[in-house]
Amino acid sequence: MEAARGIADLGYKAIIIETRDRLGGNPDSSGYAKLTPNMQDSEEAMDEMRNAVLDNPNVEIMLNTTIGGMEGELGNFRIKGKSDGKSVEIDGGAIIVATGFQHFDPGRETQKYGYYEHDDVITLVDAEKMFKADHFVRPSNGEKPKSVAFIQCVGSRDRQIGNEYCSKVCCGISSKQAIEVRHHCPDAKIFIFYIDMRMYGYWENEIYWPAQEKHKVNYIKGMATEIIKKGDHLIVKGEDATLRRPMEVPMDLVILAVGMEPSMGTRRMAEVFGIKQNKFGFIETMGGALNTVSTNVPGVFAAGACTGPADLEDSISAAGSAVMKSIGAMRKSQVTA
Amino acid sequence: MEAARGIADLGYKAIIIETRDRLGGNPDSSGYAKLTPNMQDSEEAMDEMRNAVLDNPNVEIMLNTTIGGMEGELGNFRIKGKSDGKSVEIDGGAIIVATGFQHFDPGRETQKYGYYEHDDVITLVDAEKMFKADHFVRPSNGEKPKSVAFIQCVGSRDRQIGNEYCSKVCCGISSKQAIEVRHHCPDAKIFIFYIDMRMYGYWENEIYWPAQEKHKVNYIKGMATEIIKKGDHLIVKGEDATLRRPMEVPMDLVILAVGMEPSMGTRRMAEVFGIKQNKFGFIETMGGALNTVSTNVPGVFAAGACTGPADLEDSISAAGSAVMKSIGAMRKSQVTA
Repeated sequence: MEAARGIADLGYKAIIIETRDRLGGNPDSSGYAKLTPNMQDSEEAMDEMRNAVLDNPNVEIMLNTTIGGMEGELGNFRIKGKSDGKSVEIDGGAIIVATGFQHFDPGRETQKYGYYEHDDVITLVDAEKMFKADHFVRPSNGEKPKSVAFIQCVGSRDRQIGNEYCSKVCCGISSKQAIEVRHHCPDAKIFIFYIDMRMYGYWENEIYWPAQEKHKVNYIKGMATEIIKKGDHLIVKGEDATLRRPMEVPMDLVILAVGMEPSMGTRRMAEVFGIKQNKFGFIETMGGALNTVSTNVPGVFAAGACTGPADLEDSISAAGSAVMKSIGAMRKSQVTA
Repeated sequence: MEAARGIADLGYKAIIIETRDRLGGNPDSSGYAKLTPNMQDSEEAMDEMRNAVLDNPNVEIMLNTTIGGMEGELGNFRIKGKSDGKSVEIDGGAIIVATGFQHFDPGRETQKYGYYEHDDVITLVDAEKMFKADHFVRPSNGEKPKSVAFIQCVGSRDRQIGNEYCSKVCCGISSKQAIEVRHHCPDAKIFIFYIDMRMYGYWENEIYWPAQEKHKVNYIKGMATEIIKKGDHLIVKGEDATLRRPMEVPMDLVILAVGMEPSMGTRRMAEVFGIKQNKFGFIETMGGALNTVSTNVPGVFAAGACTGPADLEDSISAAGSAVMKSIGAMRKSQVTA
């Protein structure tokens, strides 16, 4: 949406191809309540972005549309797909892939958290849905939890499953959610079990310190490795790295900070457009740190979390870079053609 | 440079106003050797960026130029300044501020590291210069160090001095430099004293684990608070947070991971253009996480580390966003004018 608005503002025509029946990506489909770090209402923010492209004469939006193939080259692409069940062909000078990420599934066999077994083990995404519904409770009994634990790095920094990368945003999102838990449960004990707190840049002063000092969130360096059920409670087992000893802590509710993985759309588009993926399946950008959007295919660019873990700022900025480079490349191809 | 190239590629004219006698910013003026994370040669990378604007008919470059005032508005700005000592007026439709950061001065009175007292206490910047000269030694005696310590968060995450933010890139740069130290000193002991290792995203797998496993860099959770000299060595005093006890470790060379502060140029331009700054002096962007470049002054945008701690990818992406939004805004102002 950000890229399409920008393309339109530059006087070019943008076509948004979306598989779902409405725009908004993960913040919309997963029902995010508030954005990190500034607690902006997610629905309002997405509405604003949607309205900018919906009312835009330079933007065409194709919903319920899937892409099956691509022909041509920079300046002269033809995309083939299906829209509302009918075959379509879409022409364009350049392509920007913005297919984002999917949340890690914490129910994989390597994960000992019992996500699918215990009602009160949920994910950041499940928690967002409860915050959005303004009803934050233990799913098992509908009561407010007296103790809540966040477990960081679920599906990230994990070599066993091949996700060696850090998902970048989970520390910030967990801390933001911990503040929201405090609003719902003024007397609850709130813990964040972490390896490193990756509160880079302003997140340090915007969320990390307020969470601790104003909202009484406890950060404990240590990794939880297993969750079992004991009576009405969950027992979080792991290691407290500061105390250097095993821990077993009873909790009412556990929130798994699930990381990012390449979405199916990202994997599919990489195949359709012949774009190189890195070993994790994200789209590989070319040119090192000084180029964040170019792929190995001239005229095909990628922006946001389809290239790897990205926060909102990263994705928004990358959209701008992709617009600048894609229209620049298109113009050059017309000059030389 | 990235923004100017992009503006030119879109068919508009860019004027780069630079106070120094050549382009390249901190990587050039501070003599960076290699970029983080992919060890790209900094000079080659800057040359490539410079060449793209130097040979560009759509880019005018004004070196040795300072700005003293600004009149007008979006679509019709007039900047007044001095170029090579002569008064100049520069007209433009939109303004992108890209004045970056300056490295924290570790010799401030709050800092107990003896940067100006001990020859063998240096900064990341001093180390870069030695790497670039391919001559990495103890400044005190010209010999290769047998033990090297990096101290993280110097001037960052420090409330005493008002820099509450995390400077974002120092963990990555220190780890990259630790690998370079290993190349110069195959048998040295190399330590990184840290609070949290903020190796977000791919830095985790690209530098953090290779530094430890391939290059035998030791990461020690703990903050060094003071450095004194004892005979031929430095003594790093502090707390080992894992062992939970005070530490006093002898070292041949200590590298202070100095953070980012707003540059003088950033502070000056904020004044000249009437742009709002945050409490740290960086330029404040408007619109939360979904707008990384707009300032409170319509038509004036900011990109990169002048808005706060930023890595190379952040700055490059933000340049694209600033180009997209500035030309978009200019075009709209012409339509309504």
